[in-house]
Amino acid sequence: MVNYPHHIIRKQSQPAQAVKTTNFANRGMSFEAAINATNSFYLARQIAVIHKKPTPVQIVKVDYPKRSRAKIVEAYFRQASTTDYSGVYKGHYIDFEAKETRHKTSIPMKNFHAHQIEHMSQVLKQKGICFVLLHFSALKETYLLPASHLIRFYRIDNGGKSMPIDYIKKNGYSVRESVFPQIPYLDIVDKNILGGD
Amino acid sequence: MVNYPHHIIRKQSQPAQAVKTTNFANRGMSFEAAINATNSFYLARQIAVIHKKPTPVQIVKVDYPKRSRAKIVEAYFRQASTTDYSGVYKGHYIDFEAKETRHKTSIPMKNFHAHQIEHMSQVLKQKGICFVLLHFSALKETYLLPASHLIRFYRIDNGGKSMPIDYIKKNGYSVRESVFPQIPYLDIVDKNILGGD
Repeated sequence: MVNYPHHIIRKQSQPAQAVKTTNFANRGMSFEAAINATNSFYLARQIAVIHKKPTPVQIVKVDYPKRSRAKIVEAYFRQASTTDYSGVYKGHYIDFEAKETRHKTSIPMKNFHAHQIEHMSQVLKQKGICFVLLHFSALKETYLLPASHLIRFYRIDNGGKSMPIDYIKKNGYSVRESVFPQIPYLDIVDKNILGGD
Repeated sequence: MVNYPHHIIRKQSQPAQAVKTTNFANRGMSFEAAINATNSFYLARQIAVIHKKPTPVQIVKVDYPKRSRAKIVEAYFRQASTTDYSGVYKGHYIDFEAKETRHKTSIPMKNFHAHQIEHMSQVLKQKGICFVLLHFSALKETYLLPASHLIRFYRIDNGGKSMPIDYIKKNGYSVRESVFPQIPYLDIVDKNILGGD
């Protein structure tokens, strides 16, 4: 949930040893945390405004104790009807989902829900820029796959089984992880989606 | 939280008496519900993909009962660091906040938090389309005020006191409420912001 520039500043003042390793996981950082740090970097440098949406929660019961703040005492997780990340980059609407797998040759399609696929399809119709970031933790590899190719695979396969890494490599782009920012996915958007906009 | 097309369909089959009154409040609908219904309309007609973000909640404790779904038993409301609504319309990033007041001549500026103003400023720098929808319930009037004018007023006034309706009328646009969709704010975006894009 760290989304603010001070996080970045702390990173900057870390000792040089962190610079040697280029994979965020080596520094004990999850894929999600690495994306959030990347978004904080983009925000602080005024490159883009992209946020992770809050976890959707169905609130059932709230207590209002005297002299203290409201406390939610019964709530449930709801399934997200959209993707996790969205925002604006050079006027363009950016929308993506991030998924991590320990598998080495494919990613299980159960990672993507029908209404998320539907959402991506709706976004593409509105000319939004939509993709998935896929991280293969065992391989230390990250790919950006345009949503159109995910949707195509989902429809062929009907959401079952797994999407092979070969399909991802063929239709997507490798995101070279770096230290700062960790997952510079907007480089791919610039070069391969906007085409030097 | 109703965000799906079936909501629209139900509206369509309502008796004609609903058509006579043009204000959503007459039909027992809150401003927020009217905006959500408007967004559902836009989504179902493939006009735009705009969603309300989930309420940000800080989850402290979750129970995992056997044979039943996870239950959040301690959580707190967090202050939103962005606006409530965002999405894509004809490739453009759309971002807005909606506020309602019972006052007749102004809206209290305490409705807008410093980090929301900062967020709007960041969105404008990225060439996103950003505004506030302001509903004066006693007057049954709704205005779209571009974020630039809200930010200007906020900085002059330093976030204190109230923004007069005269300022809103001078710098914003009246949104004529209708039945279907209830609050056709994209008409204003088309005519007055995109300029017939």
